Amino acid sequence: MNFLEERILKEGRVYPGNILKVDSFLNHQIDIELIDRIGEAFYEKYKDKGITRILTIEASGIAIACSAARFFKVPILFAKKAKSLNLGNDLYVSKVKSYTFGKEYDITLSKRYLNKGDRILLVDDFLAIGNALHGLIDICSQAGAEVEGICICIEKGFQDGGKILRDEGYDVTSLAIVSEMTDDGKISFKDQTA
Amino acid sequence: MNFLEERILKEGRVYPGNILKVDSFLNHQIDIELIDRIGEAFYEKYKDKGITRILTIEASGIAIACSAARFFKVPILFAKKAKSLNLGNDLYVSKVKSYTFGKEYDITLSKRYLNKGDRILLVDDFLAIGNALHGLIDICSQAGAEVEGICICIEKGFQDGGKILRDEGYDVTSLAIVSEMTDDGKISFKDQTA
Repeated sequence: MNFLEERILKEGRVYPGNILKVDSFLNHQIDIELIDRIGEAFYEKYKDKGITRILTIEASGIAIACSAARFFKVPILFAKKAKSLNLGNDLYVSKVKSYTFGKEYDITLSKRYLNKGDRILLVDDFLAIGNALHGLIDICSQAGAEVEGICICIEKGFQDGGKILRDEGYDVTSLAIVSEMTDDGKISFKDQTA
Repeated sequence: MNFLEERILKEGRVYPGNILKVDSFLNHQIDIELIDRIGEAFYEKYKDKGITRILTIEASGIAIACSAARFFKVPILFAKKAKSLNLGNDLYVSKVKSYTFGKEYDITLSKRYLNKGDRILLVDDFLAIGNALHGLIDICSQAGAEVEGICICIEKGFQDGGKILRDEGYDVTSLAIVSEMTDDGKISFKDQTA
């Protein structure tokens, strides 16, 4: 069991509807030491891939992407969920359906900062159905940038997102893959050490 | 002129309506080395204040708050702008009017993570009218937590937010205070060295 799986067992809370709350350390309150360990783990896996930028989506992915970027020594980019009046018109846009918020929204990224030839590491806190990641992949495709890897803190292995992305040929690394959650709060992980 | 002012002069772009875009290094693409220098500057100013948590608001504040928290060795908290289905009911809520997005919204924070006796450093990327910060201050007040300082990257000194907060007695530190922006792109800063 790795450090993230241990922390999930210690502080994660299961709610009906396959909701796993880890907001004491990952996506509301943030434990910096923990996310730095996560960033380092992602770096160890992808350090030889010539990554030029780390791409995530607001808001929960930003802290994790920053910790990873510190090791890679590359800039991070975060796609925005709402079309800010300040963002300008020169944007990549992709449509995403949110499981958490129960609605569809556009994600946007300025064309200035993602270009043909960029080698991108995608980073996010959760992978369930994978809609947000497919939006980011679509934006990379529009830019002509290559997705070299997808780094996830917690994958819900009982939902389809991870399988779909791997079947599409993406190299997905999830530090913790939850194989089962029960309503009485028991959390099981897929054994990735084999 | 400090490192942030220099970077703003080099890469900041002025648009009509007093919009200063710094999205090449601060709030869309993020230069990690720069925000770590910002975090360290905030730490140098408030390291003796017994800070227990750093509080910001999604999304642009998160990266900066994380860099500061790394020096203070405390957790960060970020208030959320939309009421997620997953956040639960046990929330502090405050209403904020957004200048950037032209609408009013609730910000929320779980009551689990902010408590009476907490000594809070507020961190954000911009200070203009100060509405978002007043929302965070309101939440600290609801929790019985003390606001020990307010750390801002870029203050628009020609708008009222900074003056109002200082008149209210808050210790506001802005690394760059823009005193004037002209439509032809000239940016001037308030001299804080005196």
